[in-house]
Amino acid sequence: MSGAQTEGERLAELAKRRGYFFGASGAYGGAAGFYTFGPQGAALKSNVEDAWRDRFTVQEGNFEVEAPTIMPEPVFEASGHLDGFDDMLVECPECGESHRADHLIEDETDLEDAESLPIEEVEALIADHDLQCPNCGAHLAGESVESFNLMFETNIGPGSSTPGYLRPETAQGIFVEFPRIKEYARNSLPFGATQIGRAYRNEISPRKSIVRTREFTQAELEQFVDPERDEPELDEVADVEVTLYPATEQQADDGDYVETTVGEAVDEEIIGDPWIGYFVGIAQEWYERIGVDMDRFRFRQHLAGERAHYAADCWDAESEVDGDWIEIAGFAYRGDYDLSKHGEYSDDDFTIFRQYDEPKTVERAGVDPDMSVLGPEFGGAAGDVKAALEALAERDPAAFEGETVDVDVDGETHTVDTDVANFSVDEERVSGEHITPHVIEPSFGVDRTVYTLLAHAYGEDEVDGETRSYLSLSPTVAPTDVGVFPLVSNVDELVDRAQAVVDDLRAAGFSVVYDDSGSIGRRYRRQDEVGTPFCVTVDRDGLEGDGPDSVTIRERDTARQIRVPIDDLVAELRTVESGARTFDDLVEAYELVAPGANA
Amino acid sequence: MSGAQTEGERLAELAKRRGYFFGASGAYGGAAGFYTFGPQGAALKSNVEDAWRDRFTVQEGNFEVEAPTIMPEPVFEASGHLDGFDDMLVECPECGESHRADHLIEDETDLEDAESLPIEEVEALIADHDLQCPNCGAHLAGESVESFNLMFETNIGPGSSTPGYLRPETAQGIFVEFPRIKEYARNSLPFGATQIGRAYRNEISPRKSIVRTREFTQAELEQFVDPERDEPELDEVADVEVTLYPATEQQADDGDYVETTVGEAVDEEIIGDPWIGYFVGIAQEWYERIGVDMDRFRFRQHLAGERAHYAADCWDAESEVDGDWIEIAGFAYRGDYDLSKHGEYSDDDFTIFRQYDEPKTVERAGVDPDMSVLGPEFGGAAGDVKAALEALAERDPAAFEGETVDVDVDGETHTVDTDVANFSVDEERVSGEHITPHVIEPSFGVDRTVYTLLAHAYGEDEVDGETRSYLSLSPTVAPTDVGVFPLVSNVDELVDRAQAVVDDLRAAGFSVVYDDSGSIGRRYRRQDEVGTPFCVTVDRDGLEGDGPDSVTIRERDTARQIRVPIDDLVAELRTVESGARTFDDLVEAYELVAPGANA
Repeated sequence: MSGAQTEGERLAELAKRRGYFFGASGAYGGAAGFYTFGPQGAALKSNVEDAWRDRFTVQEGNFEVEAPTIMPEPVFEASGHLDGFDDMLVECPECGESHRADHLIEDETDLEDAESLPIEEVEALIADHDLQCPNCGAHLAGESVESFNLMFETNIGPGSSTPGYLRPETAQGIFVEFPRIKEYARNSLPFGATQIGRAYRNEISPRKSIVRTREFTQAELEQFVDPERDEPELDEVADVEVTLYPATEQQADDGDYVETTVGEAVDEEIIGDPWIGYFVGIAQEWYERIGVDMDRFRFRQHLAGERAHYAADCWDAESEVDGDWIEIAGFAYRGDYDLSKHGEYSDDDFTIFRQYDEPKTVERAGVDPDMSVLGPEFGGAAGDVKAALEALAERDPAAFEGETVDVDVDGETHTVDTDVANFSVDEERVSGEHITPHVIEPSFGVDRTVYTLLAHAYGEDEVDGETRSYLSLSPTVAPTDVGVFPLVSNVDELVDRAQAVVDDLRAAGFSVVYDDSGSIGRRYRRQDEVGTPFCVTVDRDGLEGDGPDSVTIRERDTARQIRVPIDDLVAELRTVESGARTFDDLVEAYELVAPGANA
Repeated sequence: MSGAQTEGERLAELAKRRGYFFGASGAYGGAAGFYTFGPQGAALKSNVEDAWRDRFTVQEGNFEVEAPTIMPEPVFEASGHLDGFDDMLVECPECGESHRADHLIEDETDLEDAESLPIEEVEALIADHDLQCPNCGAHLAGESVESFNLMFETNIGPGSSTPGYLRPETAQGIFVEFPRIKEYARNSLPFGATQIGRAYRNEISPRKSIVRTREFTQAELEQFVDPERDEPELDEVADVEVTLYPATEQQADDGDYVETTVGEAVDEEIIGDPWIGYFVGIAQEWYERIGVDMDRFRFRQHLAGERAHYAADCWDAESEVDGDWIEIAGFAYRGDYDLSKHGEYSDDDFTIFRQYDEPKTVERAGVDPDMSVLGPEFGGAAGDVKAALEALAERDPAAFEGETVDVDVDGETHTVDTDVANFSVDEERVSGEHITPHVIEPSFGVDRTVYTLLAHAYGEDEVDGETRSYLSLSPTVAPTDVGVFPLVSNVDELVDRAQAVVDDLRAAGFSVVYDDSGSIGRRYRRQDEVGTPFCVTVDRDGLEGDGPDSVTIRERDTARQIRVPIDDLVAELRTVESGARTFDDLVEAYELVAPGANA
């Protein structure tokens, strides 16, 4: 570790220098909260997305969709984002800088979760603690705190404006199309729909590099279930070991992590819902496979105050970077909230027909009012009286037991003869009922996952007497699979053979970088620093010996090198990349090259 | 072909029913110009993107980046989009509907390319032809035509607003980061940078399904070259045959396509620049591989009026659907326009240092004015006089040949003794110079490519006496690789074995659909209709015979079936999907199952 720099600073510096990510539009002074992924970062991010798709869409047999990022206003009226998706804003009276009021309080007091406090209390806390503007030091006491909606607004089309918003989460693009997606699932629960794409939040003060940005990528899965019938295949992940940090432990004085298995956590109701347990188990394995350091990883349960009111249980996957815990995914049981809301606000059908095992006979109370009597008696109100009688019959059949029945229409009570209402109870055969599916939502932040992978992969050691820094990225996500070098660049034969190796590897689907500039040691360091798992070098020794032509393969983390016949190169790299063999196996099978022999 | 429906209508209907794409937010009445890709469409689109990435990024050794979709205003001041990215809007005085004035003219007159006409002329044409509102029939003569900027605008951050725009093309996310990307390319030309991502245009009247939408996906490559030194490897594509429609042929009375090769087209200067020729050749091969019908495909050169003023030559790749030609990609020689603009508007360095083969000695004229004389003489203007002398020395050394020299400062002429200016000409050794690279831009519309693939893949024929419709999508892009079915769903052994086949195929990387509902014939039709190349069926015959357990493989386009041992299934499907063998080869090697034997 290099002295004064924090892990985050070192990461930001490396990320920019080596093309992982950097603040966007820097030529124009930048735009806070927007980042561009350079060649290495774009490849790493894309590999993370592919790995997520493979696990959460393909392996689960789910449906992936791709919806627009701009959606019309009614969607967000229904979802609640138009009214409730706010942060607390306080503006400095001196310098005009905007701050998140809850963050100021959390930074300067012992309070946590200030976000859940009412605005008046936040204003009072700012005054009580005499909080100052972090930018210019002006006193903020007495400044009003305002709700600021985090959605980016725009206008769709010309002329009289139709407001549209950049989606604050990919989820709405799935929920709003449920009436169509359920058809692709042949109207049969359970099924899952996924989406990987951009989401936008107009953060008041973006922070921490790519951890809290204004434009980011989510990978979300909406699992639609019948809450009374559907259960996950918990057996598949029952034995997966997890580090849990339940709400009770967070609130206890001597609270601690619970090290357990997914199966036990669900059995003992530490995790409240088996679907949440199922996805927690899958996520644990997935994070491990892509290279998150599981000693710096936990699942933390939301405290009651953190949860949305409709969420029955919610857990976050968190990774540790720089001593802070970062939320990198959330697992929420959202009940029927989302689909019910869209069902209520739109004209479409957000239910699924649940077939009974056997058709049922049900009694259905109804009326068939004699309009030739109601019409003359109630005039223009007759229709409303009829509707009120129908509603009453369904709600409270007992009301029709007397000789007359009373209904309220627009605050006025009307009395109708039970005979005129024509009340009756009929038997009906029904084969099922419409239910609103419940939703379990695993929601992943892709940028934060990338950030975690880079932070956890960073290492420094000594090779050939020199300090080197390297990224021990998993081959699953590393931007480049193989670096290929001629030992020297001024010998045509070596250059030509190296180029041929590049072509072969690319044709076999490997992502390859060719490099012939600078010393071979420098070229190895360059690849170490961007996390390339293997480097292949074409040298004279390999082409001039008696045996078949050969090249060296160097492993990044240990800097060990072996010599392998060129004809076997693609096959051997494939077995190692796929995990079928380890590099240790190759070391057993081939000649180990002495360190520094060609470096 | 089914009677009255046009190709486009049939496609839209199939796309919605089978989950390719449909108008977004339909539950709320929809939002014109926004589409959601359903499970099949998202997979097809993602496969097209992967195929593009493989060809234009990986195989070419280019750098892929991923930039934000929201960019700050100065970017678009420099790029010219803020001022010039307009369409002509006319609003109906009766119904208020907005229309593109140029489209109205093109639809109702013989004029083409009305977009390039000045606004006054467009207004006159509307009046002359007495054009009417397509929506309500009101007369539009006399209505004013206005420029409407097509960028979606939003505000970044709270407080005093900072305007931001959704990028109208992915290209700007590359150009604006050129100062960083060139470092990843080690400041050495030529290199290419690519990006696949969303772009946005607030179209006045979106049309034609996913062909002209307000949010769409582009795949763009910016090839940066030294115009005096860099040449493409034209040999690689010299023999590729292409159908060209040059500007001269479009304007000739008996104009026709030119069937030629890329090499000849460049030699004969039909294609004006070898880099354009190179990318046209690569694109031709790529489109063919992913399944565009090359009989419904051409490269059309822009007419002089269509080209941006800075573009030296520009060709579009066009596909035919429904009798219309759709622009699906553009290939433009953009010169140094983009980088020069950003260099001019920003403080960053958008040049590359071009090293001379040998250092050169150059004469450099300069002054070293004696400020002890200038100061007293010119007072506060002395600094400006000095700067003017320096600029003049560089611009016009001959001006210093007399005894005095005149310079203008703020409109006033000052006379300085040549001695006081201390003029001299020194020799300097310079190793190179800064140049602004030129850009060649192949720009692909992903949605339009998806649209073309679906339209060109659609077919109808008769199988087992029934009409079927199918999509003959290439295995490279088909959403699902393999459908797997138990012949019947009520025999546990068949279901279990089919599930095991699904697991094996998924583990081997295939995208698989399992289906056990309905008759086997119906299941085949379902997969035919979404373009799944192969279906595997587990039946009793395969499990009960004497030999090894086997399954049938059915090919989509011909509906032929063969019987293959289960243990060889993965390997055989891999050889066919990779193109190493054809299904005909498999038919030679294995038993052909009689048609209808299990259907």
